Amino acid sequence: MQNSFDSPLLTDLYQLTMAQVYVEKGLTGTACFEFFVRELPAERNFLVASGIQEIINFLKNFSFSSEDLKFLESTGLFNKDFLEYLSELQFKGDVYAMDEGTVFFPMEPVLQVKAPLPLAQLLETRIINVLQYSILITSKAARVSLASRGKTVVDFGLRRAHGGEAGLLAAKSSYIGGFNGTSTVLAGKLYGIPIFGTMAHSYIQAHRNELEAFLNFARTYPQRPIFLVDTYDVKQGVETAIKATQILKKEGINPFGIRIDSGDLSEESRMARLLLDEAGYNDIKIIASGDLDEYSVARLVESNAPIDGFGVGTRVVTSVDVPYLNCAYKLVEYSGKKTFKRSKGKATLPGQKQVIRHFDENGGMIFDELVLCDKTMNTSATAKCLLKPIVEQGKVVNSAFAIEDARQRLRTSLNMLPNHLKALHKAPVYEVRINPKHFNLS
Amino acid sequence: MQNSFDSPLLTDLYQLTMAQVYVEKGLTGTACFEFFVRELPAERNFLVASGIQEIINFLKNFSFSSEDLKFLESTGLFNKDFLEYLSELQFKGDVYAMDEGTVFFPMEPVLQVKAPLPLAQLLETRIINVLQYSILITSKAARVSLASRGKTVVDFGLRRAHGGEAGLLAAKSSYIGGFNGTSTVLAGKLYGIPIFGTMAHSYIQAHRNELEAFLNFARTYPQRPIFLVDTYDVKQGVETAIKATQILKKEGINPFGIRIDSGDLSEESRMARLLLDEAGYNDIKIIASGDLDEYSVARLVESNAPIDGFGVGTRVVTSVDVPYLNCAYKLVEYSGKKTFKRSKGKATLPGQKQVIRHFDENGGMIFDELVLCDKTMNTSATAKCLLKPIVEQGKVVNSAFAIEDARQRLRTSLNMLPNHLKALHKAPVYEVRINPKHFNLS
Repeated sequence: MQNSFDSPLLTDLYQLTMAQVYVEKGLTGTACFEFFVRELPAERNFLVASGIQEIINFLKNFSFSSEDLKFLESTGLFNKDFLEYLSELQFKGDVYAMDEGTVFFPMEPVLQVKAPLPLAQLLETRIINVLQYSILITSKAARVSLASRGKTVVDFGLRRAHGGEAGLLAAKSSYIGGFNGTSTVLAGKLYGIPIFGTMAHSYIQAHRNELEAFLNFARTYPQRPIFLVDTYDVKQGVETAIKATQILKKEGINPFGIRIDSGDLSEESRMARLLLDEAGYNDIKIIASGDLDEYSVARLVESNAPIDGFGVGTRVVTSVDVPYLNCAYKLVEYSGKKTFKRSKGKATLPGQKQVIRHFDENGGMIFDELVLCDKTMNTSATAKCLLKPIVEQGKVVNSAFAIEDARQRLRTSLNMLPNHLKALHKAPVYEVRINPKHFNLS
Repeated sequence: MQNSFDSPLLTDLYQLTMAQVYVEKGLTGTACFEFFVRELPAERNFLVASGIQEIINFLKNFSFSSEDLKFLESTGLFNKDFLEYLSELQFKGDVYAMDEGTVFFPMEPVLQVKAPLPLAQLLETRIINVLQYSILITSKAARVSLASRGKTVVDFGLRRAHGGEAGLLAAKSSYIGGFNGTSTVLAGKLYGIPIFGTMAHSYIQAHRNELEAFLNFARTYPQRPIFLVDTYDVKQGVETAIKATQILKKEGINPFGIRIDSGDLSEESRMARLLLDEAGYNDIKIIASGDLDEYSVARLVESNAPIDGFGVGTRVVTSVDVPYLNCAYKLVEYSGKKTFKRSKGKATLPGQKQVIRHFDENGGMIFDELVLCDKTMNTSATAKCLLKPIVEQGKVVNSAFAIEDARQRLRTSLNMLPNHLKALHKAPVYEVRINPKHFNLS
């Protein structure tokens, strides 16, 4: 599917007006921009790189259609020479990035773009738009996964994501973050993510009674039916599920579980477990959903609530406690010269950088180091460079972006992460060494 | 532009599995679903209807492609009869909705869909996905507009919106909410919204110095150049802007303004105003941006900071204080029978409803009333029905969705709204009368 939001007009007007000045004044030398996060929100101890595959696709397809150019002409802001320049524009530059699923920290570049200044500038808005959200969700989902201690977690968030693309990116990002699947069908089609679903309250309401609703569903989907039990009353719903199970077993159908979507999930799940066990159905699973996030999942898991899986939506796909990151895409080099800005609270470090991660002999992360790319880098088994070439002169040279690889990479990353950073509460920060002398700031 | 997020697969899996049961069991009678918000967040005194035009477009184009059907077949969950049913599916039902730009309150349906049960069910996820976000942003932007007391406000939020569609919907929704325009070029092309822009820090950095950057820009855009003055130091930046103005005036170019994007905006704007006035440039405007929302805009306006316009982004497009609404799309009638659910905290009122708004003789809103559609409704100059037919048997019968009309409608609505509800802090709730007897709940 062509992504209609990869239009080059999905950008801020100033990117285009600045680009025209650059072209007019011959400021078309090579620029290096870096995307990075300035600071860690109080509610996060680490972030996870994600969304880079989407940026590669965006760059590969970057071009202005004649319709785009007609609209730009109609604004009266752009001259013929510049529109001609845009009509021929393609991305032939270089991109360096962290692998998706890599844990990272503030000030560390996640993605670097090297291209003629006007082009590199035009890419800014969409790069931030996609990377920020993907990172937000992968990072949040990783916390939910840690809190679930290995229990199944599925993304149910599409409806309350901010628009369609957010829903789709959330399904993908949360899968990389450790979720087991999503309810979003299109994410299954586009990314091959496992898709899951149960039934809705309206489905129960449309039937004459709960029993009929459960039986109809199970007979159509005899594989793994899950019954929603809280439309009218949870206890009564569980009893109906038991009755349905008794009937269905005789037909050779083994219901998989029940879902509770409201009320006190700890209390309701204990009550449901008791009733199911008394009926002899201790193999029937209990799925919980409704306003869950890493904090409530952790409380339920820690209190040993008999819940086997979680449907998590709204609070993850909106990254409700951290709905945005203090992140930027900043010019660090232009025509071989290092650049920076000094704005209060928004200062940047000059020059294209590399991130070196240092490990102890057991593979545990000790600290990261931010160095200039032009320094000689001695990497070894205990010191690895996180930024790798992804695109060279417009050609993709590294396609290690399979979603399953990213998901596995994060799992491995989390094993190397110091334990205190895996806590849900704020922990002492992980060290990112920046030697002021390297950046001529001393 | 075809919206690729209007794919019928951008939905939850259970919508499709439930629909198959409905089709198999002959549960294809007419259903009525209502979209409504359950409760007002503590940070809002009213909400604004928005996003309905997008839903109409979605319904008009609703159909499964052969590629969609192939994917569904590959899941092994759907049989040939159901896939055949999907292949012929089109929206031929009815839609009632509030006009975009209408102020509304909890429990009031904003949109109602009447269609065969399987179809009406399949629409749920995308309807909530679009309406929730549009309402969130229009409602938040209306607060910023009220706080700005008539000063110019422009949406700068695309980069930190949650994905591309959110950025586009935010540009549109905030314009309906009262903003004067957006920086998002594509929103200008698709909706005809005025587009605005200044320049970025990277633009200044790419030049040898600020003066050259300012002069280059003004000579390319002599109409209304705005200079960004905080890349290195605000005071120095303003002095450079003055120097540039002196040079440019001799060339017949009159700079429009300066922009400050960091630091203490109240303090910096006063300093800048003083310097500009001393230089004789009291016509040069001051634009402020950087993490603004209704609270900071109100503080700046109330403290008489000499700011002429605001660029507002991140905190509005993420609706940072209220990133989601407790909203639902619920079955209220099926085959002529009223339905409801009793789940704790998620109970619904049965039956298709109408919202009657009562006004005093000066046009001021007094209270709203929720009644069943089958009650006789006596509407008059002081009592108006808010829900109107939009689509009848698949045909659009009401196209009063021009964005300028919606923007004007909200402005008129806000004039009728009791003053205490326009405050940024929590006010006593507006009354929505629900007569339990009407709903057979007494």
